[in-house]
Amino acid sequence: MQKKWWGWGALDKQYPLDAKPEAWPYLKARLGMTADVERAPVALEDIQIPQSRLEQAAVDALVEAVGQMNFSRAGQDRLMHAYGKGYKDLVRLRAGTISNAPDAVVYPNQEAQVEAVLRLAVEHGFAVIPFGGGTSVVSGLEMPDSQSDRPFISLDLGRMAEVVSIDLVSQTATVQAGIMGPRLEEALQAQGMTLGHYPQSFEFSSLGGWVATRSAGQQSTRYGKIEHMVVALRMVTPTGILETRPLPAAAQGPDLNQMAVGSEGLYGVITQVTVRVHALPERREYAAMLFPSWEAGQKALREVLQGERHPATLRLADVAETQALFKLREPSRSPVQAWAQRAFKWYAAKVKDVQMDNACMLIMGFEGAHEQVEQDRDAIVGTCEQNHGVNLGHGIGESWYKSRFELPYLRDTLLDRGVLVDTLETSATWEALPALYAAVISALETAIRADGLDPLVYCHVSHPYHVGASLYFTFMAKQIEGDELAQWTRYKRAASEAIAANGGALSHHHGVGLDHAPWAPDALGAEGMRMLRGLKDAVDPAGVMNPGKIIGTP
Amino acid sequence: MQKKWWGWGALDKQYPLDAKPEAWPYLKARLGMTADVERAPVALEDIQIPQSRLEQAAVDALVEAVGQMNFSRAGQDRLMHAYGKGYKDLVRLRAGTISNAPDAVVYPNQEAQVEAVLRLAVEHGFAVIPFGGGTSVVSGLEMPDSQSDRPFISLDLGRMAEVVSIDLVSQTATVQAGIMGPRLEEALQAQGMTLGHYPQSFEFSSLGGWVATRSAGQQSTRYGKIEHMVVALRMVTPTGILETRPLPAAAQGPDLNQMAVGSEGLYGVITQVTVRVHALPERREYAAMLFPSWEAGQKALREVLQGERHPATLRLADVAETQALFKLREPSRSPVQAWAQRAFKWYAAKVKDVQMDNACMLIMGFEGAHEQVEQDRDAIVGTCEQNHGVNLGHGIGESWYKSRFELPYLRDTLLDRGVLVDTLETSATWEALPALYAAVISALETAIRADGLDPLVYCHVSHPYHVGASLYFTFMAKQIEGDELAQWTRYKRAASEAIAANGGALSHHHGVGLDHAPWAPDALGAEGMRMLRGLKDAVDPAGVMNPGKIIGTP
Repeated sequence: MQKKWWGWGALDKQYPLDAKPEAWPYLKARLGMTADVERAPVALEDIQIPQSRLEQAAVDALVEAVGQMNFSRAGQDRLMHAYGKGYKDLVRLRAGTISNAPDAVVYPNQEAQVEAVLRLAVEHGFAVIPFGGGTSVVSGLEMPDSQSDRPFISLDLGRMAEVVSIDLVSQTATVQAGIMGPRLEEALQAQGMTLGHYPQSFEFSSLGGWVATRSAGQQSTRYGKIEHMVVALRMVTPTGILETRPLPAAAQGPDLNQMAVGSEGLYGVITQVTVRVHALPERREYAAMLFPSWEAGQKALREVLQGERHPATLRLADVAETQALFKLREPSRSPVQAWAQRAFKWYAAKVKDVQMDNACMLIMGFEGAHEQVEQDRDAIVGTCEQNHGVNLGHGIGESWYKSRFELPYLRDTLLDRGVLVDTLETSATWEALPALYAAVISALETAIRADGLDPLVYCHVSHPYHVGASLYFTFMAKQIEGDELAQWTRYKRAASEAIAANGGALSHHHGVGLDHAPWAPDALGAEGMRMLRGLKDAVDPAGVMNPGKIIGTP
Repeated sequence: MQKKWWGWGALDKQYPLDAKPEAWPYLKARLGMTADVERAPVALEDIQIPQSRLEQAAVDALVEAVGQMNFSRAGQDRLMHAYGKGYKDLVRLRAGTISNAPDAVVYPNQEAQVEAVLRLAVEHGFAVIPFGGGTSVVSGLEMPDSQSDRPFISLDLGRMAEVVSIDLVSQTATVQAGIMGPRLEEALQAQGMTLGHYPQSFEFSSLGGWVATRSAGQQSTRYGKIEHMVVALRMVTPTGILETRPLPAAAQGPDLNQMAVGSEGLYGVITQVTVRVHALPERREYAAMLFPSWEAGQKALREVLQGERHPATLRLADVAETQALFKLREPSRSPVQAWAQRAFKWYAAKVKDVQMDNACMLIMGFEGAHEQVEQDRDAIVGTCEQNHGVNLGHGIGESWYKSRFELPYLRDTLLDRGVLVDTLETSATWEALPALYAAVISALETAIRADGLDPLVYCHVSHPYHVGASLYFTFMAKQIEGDELAQWTRYKRAASEAIAANGGALSHHHGVGLDHAPWAPDALGAEGMRMLRGLKDAVDPAGVMNPGKIIGTP
């Protein structure tokens, strides 16, 4: 499959915005956009990539280490490895501003080649940035400005993508880190198993990338975040190979797996991971409910989790996101459906006191054995109804499930139409969540209004836990032509400051990268930073691994 | 409550061995002990504690830092902080061999005093060993032989034992680390909450100790091990205070909590922990089943966990432990009970094909909401019956639950009677478990037989997980008088080597201490050791914190 170099996913795929007649008029109106604009990415052939700065001796040594076929300085390879898939990345790619491309790309096909590449990095002084699917949205794949003169290479794990073994007794799979989501699930499902990890980037992101960034899938309430799935791993560092044993739990010092998980390439290259897998669910059921308020919905989620029920998915949209979701639906196809919708609205409002202006939608997913799905669903619907939720049945839930990987394509369509659109996420305890939510919404709206623009900002809770939940924000505004990056930076900074002031996580599942690193000293504290840097000094004394991520530059 | 200085728990409490008429004759026969012996601990007043080596300047500075009332060089205080509660410890204590007592004990009552003590340690060059409940069974509380000349103090957290706050919305509690199990549960239960952490040492161990050693409670299948309960913590290191934020999950680099959890005092003193708590269960139900074989029982456990059911307790005894458990029961009180027992044996053997000679007993515990307890119990009993388990009903289960903290007292009684008795534990994936089990049993039996003695070695699975389980071994032999420590060391080494050769964890929930440190390089690998040492160098460059634990001495 050919991938877009300037946007999300498959080259031939687009978000079907015009199939949803209410969507674009709604967005235009909300964003105060009067005229339609059309903004296309520059042509590939017009892009200038700076000359590779790698000295010939380093090139020769790398070619010898990985083989001619696994080494490239070709412009398109370097372009495809220059950025992730954040808003900032797409703006730069579409504009053809590729100042920051790697000086070469290597594609090692075995761990010994990774070791050799890191040895050469120390010897020749270039930096190494590990590359999985390239879907980072936190600038995890580029050099910090302070080191923009330093040569660096992208180490693409795509040729280390085999399933090494599946242990059907222990329900673990040992897999090379470069494998992409679909290939991994295909191999597992052929054995009746699943990892159950479906981040929105699933089709284009890799196991190693998930582990390095602490990814979360849409079914995380049942299967856990990726850090809960890692049983053992191998990470090549400049000083050696960390190899942990597959154990269900242990008391043998601090958890080494959890020092590699989330390390974002700072310490080394994760080459292999043993993950916990599950029997394929006998049954899968998605449904939706409508709550009379954001607070009522959150309370229901909290009670479900604190009541020790673990459905696959619980995803609660706030009022603004609920309304946007309804606008993004395809139109009712028949008068009967339209009548049924009106009847439901009447029922919800008059009988259940759920007013559409304040309604919040919950998507629920259940997976597992038949009996467990039924028990969980009945218990959870009961808890929701006690909190004044109204059952919307399966339609909306199933349609959400079917289109769950589509939304990133919408961003490209909106960029074509001159809309700034980005998402960011954080987490907090239930007690801290309302203030954090209000502060981030307000910070984003205020920052956008300060540019004289109309904001559209909304949020959902997508990963509830016993003690708290994540908040996932979407923000949109009209793009200020010629000022796109600075405009985005203003909004992002406003949100990050609001998160910091309210004790939220730097991120719940996107990672730190360069984008969140300025707030890391606040979030992790001086001693936390010292510990992360101490680990860095121990395993990468020459500082060749992914400079500037998480802990910034010294 | 006065505690035994020479044994387990409360001074006035003993295991009621003689109330179980079959027990001692059975043990004597199994261990080939013909004559009864009586071996008492030396008298307290006969114990000689070496002179404190702390220089006067250090004493003065410590007194100034913590106050006269929080500082002691008294012999009994130093004695009570010299050892943990392992077999090796009790042997030395009972013999009055206290070569290794701390030179002083400090009892800081606030975090600033802990900071001051660590500063003084760096300044004056003495070492600091944090002390919670003092129940380590892996020599976590003493100096390594290689540093026996170095002065050290015991830092007792017992005066930092307050519940700081309980967040009933997020269901978290922030608690000073020195609190003991009963006091913590009392405070939580007064608010309708529980931590659900009941290690066998519960009555005498502390929150900070649990966290520092990766403790597991008997209800861990529902509530998790302690590392799953930690939401945030504070750890005073010689270079500063690690303070993590309470978050349900995050993607902000490697998990700092998990660098402190299990650190066994190597990096600093854990002073405060925010833990996840739960509503008190509406219902609690314990029961037992009998399986025709060890393999059938393990398969049932695996299917329960892989089927995503999480009862509170699942504890499966092997054949030898099942027989010992029956011998440790009190006699049937009535002819009707005795008749019922005979009838059950007939039924199990003839109808269910469970022969008592091969039978393995499972203790099951269910806690939670009424409905969930019923659903889990029905599902789990169903899985057990599919694996040929026979339901024994509630009697044995409830009686296990009632006496669940009693067994450590039995050790004192057996030591009085000249029996070497110890336990050790490990973990592995389900696939690796059978070979690990066989190897450890065989290693212990062989080592004991090599001394010309009759071994009694048995095992249970006490903490099953999705991908594997822990194995908890008990081993007994006649004590060789005058050679007790070397005798024990031979058996312990044999077991540790068998664990290492079969990929088991150094420990599942006791920790590493000094006892398992020789096998750490094998279990954690060179790069893992480098990472743990790198962290040590970053936060404790002077090396004052609990020398020799986990990673040994440099």
